[in-house]
Amino acid sequence: MRLTGTWPAGLESAFHRYEDALVRDDTAVLDALFEPGPGTLRGDGAGLLRGHEQISAFRSARGGVAPRVLVDVDVQVLGPDAAVVVGISRFVDGGRGLQTQLWCRTDGTWRIRTAHVTGRATAFDRSVWRVLGDPLVPGAGAGSAPLAGVRVAVKDLLAVRGQVIGAGNPTWQAAAAVEDEHAPAVAVLLDAGAAVVGIARTDEFAYALAGRNAHSGTTPNGAAPERIGGGSTSGPASAVALGQADLGLGTDTAGSIRVPASYQGLWGLRTTHGAVPRDGVLPLAQTFDTVGWLTRGPELLRRVVEVTLGEAGTTPTGIDTAALLLSETLLDAAEPDTRRAFVDWTERTGRALHPVALPDLDELAETVRIVQAAEAHRNHGAWIAAHPEALGSDVAERFAAAAAVTVDQEAVARVRLVELRTALRRAVGNGVLALPTVPGPAPSRTADTAAVLVTRRATLRMTAVAGIGGLPAISIPALEIADAPVGVSLVGPVGADRALVDLATDLTAATRL
Amino acid sequence: MRLTGTWPAGLESAFHRYEDALVRDDTAVLDALFEPGPGTLRGDGAGLLRGHEQISAFRSARGGVAPRVLVDVDVQVLGPDAAVVVGISRFVDGGRGLQTQLWCRTDGTWRIRTAHVTGRATAFDRSVWRVLGDPLVPGAGAGSAPLAGVRVAVKDLLAVRGQVIGAGNPTWQAAAAVEDEHAPAVAVLLDAGAAVVGIARTDEFAYALAGRNAHSGTTPNGAAPERIGGGSTSGPASAVALGQADLGLGTDTAGSIRVPASYQGLWGLRTTHGAVPRDGVLPLAQTFDTVGWLTRGPELLRRVVEVTLGEAGTTPTGIDTAALLLSETLLDAAEPDTRRAFVDWTERTGRALHPVALPDLDELAETVRIVQAAEAHRNHGAWIAAHPEALGSDVAERFAAAAAVTVDQEAVARVRLVELRTALRRAVGNGVLALPTVPGPAPSRTADTAAVLVTRRATLRMTAVAGIGGLPAISIPALEIADAPVGVSLVGPVGADRALVDLATDLTAATRL
Repeated sequence: MRLTGTWPAGLESAFHRYEDALVRDDTAVLDALFEPGPGTLRGDGAGLLRGHEQISAFRSARGGVAPRVLVDVDVQVLGPDAAVVVGISRFVDGGRGLQTQLWCRTDGTWRIRTAHVTGRATAFDRSVWRVLGDPLVPGAGAGSAPLAGVRVAVKDLLAVRGQVIGAGNPTWQAAAAVEDEHAPAVAVLLDAGAAVVGIARTDEFAYALAGRNAHSGTTPNGAAPERIGGGSTSGPASAVALGQADLGLGTDTAGSIRVPASYQGLWGLRTTHGAVPRDGVLPLAQTFDTVGWLTRGPELLRRVVEVTLGEAGTTPTGIDTAALLLSETLLDAAEPDTRRAFVDWTERTGRALHPVALPDLDELAETVRIVQAAEAHRNHGAWIAAHPEALGSDVAERFAAAAAVTVDQEAVARVRLVELRTALRRAVGNGVLALPTVPGPAPSRTADTAAVLVTRRATLRMTAVAGIGGLPAISIPALEIADAPVGVSLVGPVGADRALVDLATDLTAATRL
Repeated sequence: MRLTGTWPAGLESAFHRYEDALVRDDTAVLDALFEPGPGTLRGDGAGLLRGHEQISAFRSARGGVAPRVLVDVDVQVLGPDAAVVVGISRFVDGGRGLQTQLWCRTDGTWRIRTAHVTGRATAFDRSVWRVLGDPLVPGAGAGSAPLAGVRVAVKDLLAVRGQVIGAGNPTWQAAAAVEDEHAPAVAVLLDAGAAVVGIARTDEFAYALAGRNAHSGTTPNGAAPERIGGGSTSGPASAVALGQADLGLGTDTAGSIRVPASYQGLWGLRTTHGAVPRDGVLPLAQTFDTVGWLTRGPELLRRVVEVTLGEAGTTPTGIDTAALLLSETLLDAAEPDTRRAFVDWTERTGRALHPVALPDLDELAETVRIVQAAEAHRNHGAWIAAHPEALGSDVAERFAAAAAVTVDQEAVARVRLVELRTALRRAVGNGVLALPTVPGPAPSRTADTAAVLVTRRATLRMTAVAGIGGLPAISIPALEIADAPVGVSLVGPVGADRALVDLATDLTAATRL
């Protein structure tokens, strides 16, 4: 180890005690060597942890650092009781790390007040991506193509020629056949000049909303690092929020585009059911499955809608965007903070606000649940029965519940679905319904499975409106609650996809604070 | 922007002036706001810069940071003249950054003494990789397979089924056909349980030794970040040194495995010419092209040799490893520091040291140059003529010179090659020649093209011995000069591949300081 500078009295031994404890993962010693209280900081590429408690919890969950040796240490003394120490480590199995620590002495004891850590880089974040290329598939055409320069992250549920569909499950992936053709939803983007940079993660078989894949991990939240990123279009959403892609191509059955859009402050469009061909898309529940997109802003989303759906064909005439329809029951479905922020937002839109009565949300959610479960089981039940150990426990339980849906239950639900759809389409008419996309900000990354499940149930009551209706819905990053984004959704009549993007763009400008 | 803590007098304006200058790329202001002198530090994932001069040079070459806004700033005051400021930025086109700065006030002026920066993560380092997967191609067999768990980086010159060979050139890559089969050198690793994690970069058509690809950038040096990583097996070498792969599969025509091994402190084996089938390998110069590997240590390299070459077939009987052969002219070819360190190393081996006379090194290098050029032109000249703008200027010049080699020159060189090969093989006999792999540590990343070319010429005088001889050569990380690794090469008789690994392992143990 090469030392530059001079240790103040007592710091050298504290520094080495810390480094030793790090490699041994002795969390008691590490905790003791960080200053107590809320002002202590520890940051890395995943975000900044504040306060001793949060740092200690992170450390308990991490499980130590890889074996490494210090090669270079710089000590900068800032008086008798403060020093900044910069250390470079060499990892035994390759790579280097950099750490900058502010050490302070109080009551004769040296402790870290602030640490900034750069670990060695992994080749890529496997919680976000499964396959990556430079690019993986180049776009067609010249620089003047409408989507030239756009980097697409494709959800691992859509066919990319030469690749398999992994569906978020390694057992499925290992036996999957290589795709001969791009899904049309992929091909139309490539033809317009966009390049596919990679295949990004999905929750298993898209049957979750959290982005916590048991095999590839929890996707990062690009807007609120301490929270989950949401799914099931989890990888594309994170890739776009992190700036690693410009466009996320995914699917939305019961919220799988709108939820991660809301959690990560993105624009997300669930298209009119059937508007984008679903060939080459692994189905979850055909009655609800739609293709859609995630972007950081409206301009690209509008171009993608035009490229994929055509300019005229997507906008019905006579859509009324002068007013917004509001449902009291949907407002009640959101958390109080979300409700308040949403109401405030609606008032800033300058639009007339008209109340609208919707069917019971529990009934909407339960009808989605039954029909989705029946179709999910029909699509994947046999494979899952043949591979009983293949799924993560939460998705396995969901498929087990799906297998228990009876033919009679499904038949009753299908009849009810048609009635509810008719009622919803009548309620929306040629207007636009506005609602908070989800009940509130994304759950914490440390939330347990039960808490995430509670959030999922509450979310489905809100996302089911567009699902049952087969209606297009756009989520835009309109609200901020507890330093985290929450989306506002606009649900329009069949074919209003393009009109929703335009309206959302106008409303974003109108409501800017 | 959310502020935690209180600014000491004068720091707030200095901090914001710095941030503004960063986004505007106003290097004069940035330079003025960093402390002068050699003690100033700036670190990130690529390494630690020391001193104002180095930091200023880095900044001039960088070209600014992407547009971003500060969202969170923590100020920790350490007396009247020192404070640590931790800032979180949100990039306009996605992603977040973290910066920790130690500000000190001297003579009334606040300046940064130490900065630690974590930019937003890119999806992957395109200077190292072209395609990545989790894995890209899984290995066969169970956990007990000999290479189970080994992550392979394949040089972009060998066929991987379902992928194209990019050869380090995007124009070539764009028109390349998808490979139907793995190259045998790839397949044998997969069959033994190793997984291909990605296709890693090569210098264009493998016709360089620097790892400075005009299209994908300069590969990082995992051992000495301020230096180039070396090539042409550039991506696999960096991937292994960075811990992003365990095994680099590459080729060595005139040093393309040994040079990056030396530069990055790796083990690198150039196999006996013809020992590993070259099917599915894009040729550069068939007379010299060999397949080989890079690892962080001997144990994996030995297993790979056994898997690929078989246990018995690779070791000739009667090889004499009790002594080392040393050539005075090869020692003179190295830089003085390298020579001294090497001589010291040979004395620590405990082996008898026997002088050996070799043919003139300039003649060896020139003979390699002519025959390599003639074959490189025969392999790629027509394509290059048809794509005059496709190559980076240094490789383009090399191919232009190759096109100028006459039939007569080639014929003369081929006759001389046979004579030199016979002389070399006789000199080595059944012994092992030891030499510094290259003249010295890797050139600086900021070295100009001319300087890199000078290094290349000096290097070829040393690597040509194994090339002309068709002999196996292993480079091991035995020397350290100016905080950077330099390899020692052991060159043995035909078929001594496995024996060289064993000998290198023994010598590494014997010479440990």
